[in-house]
Amino acid sequence: MSWNTFGRCLRVTTFGESHGPAIGAVVDGCPPGIPLSEADIQPWLDKRRPGQNRHMTQRREPDKVKILSGVFCDDIITGQVTTGTPIALLIENTDQRSKDYAAIRDRYRPGHADYTYEAKYGVRDYRGGGRASARETAMRVAAGAVARRIIPQVEIRAALVQMGPHGIERDNWSWAEVENNPFFCPDAKAARVWEDYLDGIRKSGDSVGAVVEVVASGAPAGWGAPLFARLDQDIAAALMSIPAAKGVEIGAGFAAAALKGSENADEMRIHDGQVHFTRNNSGGILGGISSGQDIIARMAVKPTSSILTPRRTITRGGEEVEIVTRGRHDPCVGIRAVPVAEAMVALVLADHYLMHRAQTGRG
Amino acid sequence: MSWNTFGRCLRVTTFGESHGPAIGAVVDGCPPGIPLSEADIQPWLDKRRPGQNRHMTQRREPDKVKILSGVFCDDIITGQVTTGTPIALLIENTDQRSKDYAAIRDRYRPGHADYTYEAKYGVRDYRGGGRASARETAMRVAAGAVARRIIPQVEIRAALVQMGPHGIERDNWSWAEVENNPFFCPDAKAARVWEDYLDGIRKSGDSVGAVVEVVASGAPAGWGAPLFARLDQDIAAALMSIPAAKGVEIGAGFAAAALKGSENADEMRIHDGQVHFTRNNSGGILGGISSGQDIIARMAVKPTSSILTPRRTITRGGEEVEIVTRGRHDPCVGIRAVPVAEAMVALVLADHYLMHRAQTGRG
Amino acid sequence: MSWNTFGRCLRVTTFGESHGPAIGAVVDGCPPGIPLSEADIQPWLDKRRPGQNRHMTQRREPDKVKILSGVFCDDIITGQVTTGTPIALLIENTDQRSKDYAAIRDRYRPGHADYTYEAKYGVRDYRGGGRASARETAMRVAAGAVARRIIPQVEIRAALVQMGPHGIERDNWSWAEVENNPFFCPDAKAARVWEDYLDGIRKSGDSVGAVVEVVASGAPAGWGAPLFARLDQDIAAALMSIPAAKGVEIGAGFAAAALKGSENADEMRIHDGQVHFTRNNSGGILGGISSGQDIIARMAVKPTSSILTPRRTITRGGEEVEIVTRGRHDPCVGIRAVPVAEAMVALVLADHYLMHRAQTGRG
Amino acid sequence: MSWNTFGRCLRVTTFGESHGPAIGAVVDGCPPGIPLSEADIQPWLDKRRPGQNRHMTQRREPDKVKILSGVFCDDIITGQVTTGTPIALLIENTDQRSKDYAAIRDRYRPGHADYTYEAKYGVRDYRGGGRASARETAMRVAAGAVARRIIPQVEIRAALVQMGPHGIERDNWSWAEVENNPFFCPDAKAARVWEDYLDGIRKSGDSVGAVVEVVASGAPAGWGAPLFARLDQDIAAALMSIPAAKGVEIGAGFAAAALKGSENADEMRIHDGQVHFTRNNSGGILGGISSGQDIIARMAVKPTSSILTPRRTITRGGEEVEIVTRGRHDPCVGIRAVPVAEAMVALVLADHYLMHRAQTGRG
Repeated sequence: MSWNTFGRCLRVTTFGESHGPAIGAVVDGCPPGIPLSEADIQPWLDKRRPGQNRHMTQRREPDKVKILSGVFCDDIITGQVTTGTPIALLIENTDQRSKDYAAIRDRYRPGHADYTYEAKYGVRDYRGGGRASARETAMRVAAGAVARRIIPQVEIRAALVQMGPHGIERDNWSWAEVENNPFFCPDAKAARVWEDYLDGIRKSGDSVGAVVEVVASGAPAGWGAPLFARLDQDIAAALMSIPAAKGVEIGAGFAAAALKGSENADEMRIHDGQVHFTRNNSGGILGGISSGQDIIARMAVKPTSSILTPRRTITRGGEEVEIVTRGRHDPCVGIRAVPVAEAMVALVLADHYLMHRAQTGRG
Repeated sequence: MSWNTFGRCLRVTTFGESHGPAIGAVVDGCPPGIPLSEADIQPWLDKRRPGQNRHMTQRREPDKVKILSGVFCDDIITGQVTTGTPIALLIENTDQRSKDYAAIRDRYRPGHADYTYEAKYGVRDYRGGGRASARETAMRVAAGAVARRIIPQVEIRAALVQMGPHGIERDNWSWAEVENNPFFCPDAKAARVWEDYLDGIRKSGDSVGAVVEVVASGAPAGWGAPLFARLDQDIAAALMSIPAAKGVEIGAGFAAAALKGSENADEMRIHDGQVHFTRNNSGGILGGISSGQDIIARMAVKPTSSILTPRRTITRGGEEVEIVTRGRHDPCVGIRAVPVAEAMVALVLADHYLMHRAQTGRG
Repeated sequence: MSWNTFGRCLRVTTFGESHGPAIGAVVDGCPPGIPLSEADIQPWLDKRRPGQNRHMTQRREPDKVKILSGVFCDDIITGQVTTGTPIALLIENTDQRSKDYAAIRDRYRPGHADYTYEAKYGVRDYRGGGRASARETAMRVAAGAVARRIIPQVEIRAALVQMGPHGIERDNWSWAEVENNPFFCPDAKAARVWEDYLDGIRKSGDSVGAVVEVVASGAPAGWGAPLFARLDQDIAAALMSIPAAKGVEIGAGFAAAALKGSENADEMRIHDGQVHFTRNNSGGILGGISSGQDIIARMAVKPTSSILTPRRTITRGGEEVEIVTRGRHDPCVGIRAVPVAEAMVALVLADHYLMHRAQTGRG
Repeated sequence: MSWNTFGRCLRVTTFGESHGPAIGAVVDGCPPGIPLSEADIQPWLDKRRPGQNRHMTQRREPDKVKILSGVFCDDIITGQVTTGTPIALLIENTDQRSKDYAAIRDRYRPGHADYTYEAKYGVRDYRGGGRASARETAMRVAAGAVARRIIPQVEIRAALVQMGPHGIERDNWSWAEVENNPFFCPDAKAARVWEDYLDGIRKSGDSVGAVVEVVASGAPAGWGAPLFARLDQDIAAALMSIPAAKGVEIGAGFAAAALKGSENADEMRIHDGQVHFTRNNSGGILGGISSGQDIIARMAVKPTSSILTPRRTITRGGEEVEIVTRGRHDPCVGIRAVPVAEAMVALVLADHYLMHRAQTGRG
């Protein structure tokens, strides 16, 4: 069933609410003998951490991760390594202002899970969004950091390629630039446009959507499996499981619908004895299995639903009211979705690496 | 692991290759006491069947389904019903022209799974695409017909909303029209444009992509589950597991990236004592859980990879060659993906109906 | 959930009722490139087949297995091999005398699943026991034959070590003898005693229980996994899933309860540079992981519930009646459980071989 | 795969090593709205806690459980209830004397998982047995306490019915007595015999095995599912997953092997309009499905492997040595297995309650 568990061979279970004592994850199935300490995980969490600049929520979540199990240091030369047993990761919740949320106890925030959680469970922890809070994604980033250690041969990077109506110039793409601006934007020129745009959005008490692109380089041909453990299927599930995701595409994606077969075909050649594709419309996946090209996926993120602009809604009791969601919210939650998307793709790839090894004996 | 099994509570395992003796599916977890016979399944298969008009492959696959298990008729009044044990469905392969495929034994068809299957397994049944053939989707349609019987309160329909560069007018939408043209197109005017367009494509030995839209009406609020059994996650996985799918979106989908929060919010009102949403940008899913609105998903389908236009490729032995894929192929495989997409969404919804019942005791 | 699926990496789904058109199994996750044809499976089925002598049911089930998918012969030198896709196995039902069972439609046979199936599902296929028939175990034997091909380095054998009150002399154990008598008994002297004993049981219209012992040799140290994928746990589940099984033990088993720690300890030595245990009370499993010793499990099988001796029972309508189960039944169903127990252990070991390879990269 | 997860609909993942910072469990799939606080869990842990009398290990583990997620108190009248999201349970490790274990770093303790963990993983946390420590079972007891709240209609109790060679008199059985002696023994007279016996064992630096019996009353007919989600299969897996378990039996168990069919049959009658069985050799399970009778299972527990009597073993380096396991160990670990066995059966039954509800809509 796996209500709150993701993965097949490498399995991640997350738990925790925004305003409970802690959030956590259990990573199960990790190979033994892999060097791993908090220092390998914390930098990825820091990248996702709120409050780093004015374009993010001003909440203060230090998000210090602790490893509770699954590692051992028997030898100070080798250092601490994974033991093959479950790796439990914990982050204690600290910056909780539950009083902020008392106002929304009885009013369903449009675009949020308030109404549907209550319809399903009859009870919900409304403080900070409870289980539906984006805070849970911190644990995915932590688990993703473990996944990266399993497949060091694969580099998994992501960038924001659209903010609201503003895209990027593909010719300007620079991975170095992604680290240089507050938007994970690969195009320096676009980043400047976005900065003004987002300031305007924030000041007007509104929010805006975005598109994230993930690129994984270094995976060999052969990962993935027909027909219900396809690599593209699992990436789609991984990205769509991120709160606020509304769409996923692989390679040419929706644009492929407008193409002819003769245009879409990634033709094959041999360069220097290696298989070479003339294009990558497939996004590195054919028949659900990796082709050895870069694996490319994009995710559409809807605008933050918590906005200062008043919206009409109803109460638990069925009364028609207006709501303004005060508090400290991201004007473009897509920005912070960038490290989360990376992490989810890392989890999928590490999982498929292990699955491929199970069935074929090869890595 | 579930290599070839889809679903959580309701589980479908498919098997079979295009040119083996048969293809089949096992549907496990179906509730008992549901009337079910071949006559409930065959019409859905007929809808997907090739060779019905000039816009489809001219292969002849009668696709007669047999139920091998999981049903019993103890009472001629009640008729044959499910027993709660696994329902095995079988279709024998008949129209196999293996000789057609001898030419592609050693040449990897661009866009197909030939190269990746071989990279993964070291061996592949190349006859008709083997396991990677779209033929496998017949079993999804058959399994989906069983799923529909589990949730008769939900109506699941799909249509083609884009063919190549040609879309539809939303204002012309008619479900009745979907049954009237060979494209499952809901817009009669668009269907005429597509007809000419597709004739041109076919005659030029090329193919074209498409977008399928699935709409499910009648699901109550409450189906789906955080955080890794989200309804949108499972729909994304279901649709992306269909061969040739390259993108999936829910509700506003990728368009939501360009919206502001104030525009995207589906506000809530009370009409006649019922919860009412002013819009459905969410596609009927909030926080991974159904809201009671129509559930709306779209899938991008790439153009058929088998085309008569010569493409460059390589052989198993690493030689650079050209390939023309002769045989009987769909100029727009997106058309036949319509009933498959419906079936996959039916499977997801029936699964979540059972899961919701497990956890909450409600249907 | 896996209602009718067994296994983790290597997954077997069985389907079919005793008197439906066919029974079958789908084996998923099998490595590619393994030589496999019907001739590799049929001999194991023949071993289990009824009607071979007077100590078995006189039903005639030829049990001819067909492979429907997952294999391909591309090269007559190499022969037919697995392709890594699901292997579907089918046996058509032929010797069905449904009229035999009309009498038991309304009367619950004591010891059978009649009452509980009806309590659960509200409907049951009562013909020949339907899904609860021992006939289903033929598919386990077929699937087990595939599992054996995955781990040819492991020899999995079983024997009957107790029939009713009569045991064996361990000193007389001969694997060769197991093939020589109709009871899979490893002790020639005991076999003669059992023959007279079982003739008496059969003539009196009664039946008797038995104990099966399975021994697997050749598995290396390291298969199995804490804490809920333990090798002993999975063997216990595998054997207890066999109809009529009432107990499972590993190594010293229940006898270990009466031992002191000093007696029970399997001490370790080095012989010829190899790890050597002085005893095997552990049955080859420590902490849920194989130790490299023989893996030893025993299963208690209850007496056949279908007997000619009248028993008191009730009808569907709640009337108190007597029942005599006529038809063609095994006086000691434990005999035919021997190849089934072997097959289930083969499935568990092949599964754990793949799991171990997934996590550690070693076979 | 579920390396460290148990269950189908109700899923428990445990993590943690004996001498790490903490041990924990995540219980996923729990229905919402069930009253639950630490006070509902702690008493069951206290029952299992070591150091309560001279017949147990003298380690001091306060085992204070904390609930980290999955509960919420919105209303002080209703109190804290489950929310339907994952319930994380944590116990911090406190009484760790890692120095005690330095001596066993290089010597494999016979009967322990030392050698097999190292064979599998190449690394192990040897402190206190690491992941293989019986300490992990505390989390099963905690999770089992949650399971009990899901099915309050079922009473799940266990007792020790054999210690070493000493059994009980069935006629003396008293559930009240189980709470009166330090052995969970239902027979007051036997308890006195065991007391002297165990004093002798302990003083001689040895240990002894035991048999635990679990009885669950109040489950209706209909829980369980053919063929690989059988109730008896899952109970067998649950009990065999407990460290030191070497055998499991249901109802008459191994004794059924010696019975005739006419003796073994649980005949059926109607008493006061209710279905009544004349005996319960089936242990409340027929065809893998509950019959409405008491569900009865027994588990054989081997003697504690950590003993003061010197045993021969080898080192990591392959040297032949002797080992004496000092420290604070249970002379009969079967005693503390009693609450663990109860908890595992509670988890299985709550899981099957939810599964049954999924498939049939009934509880």
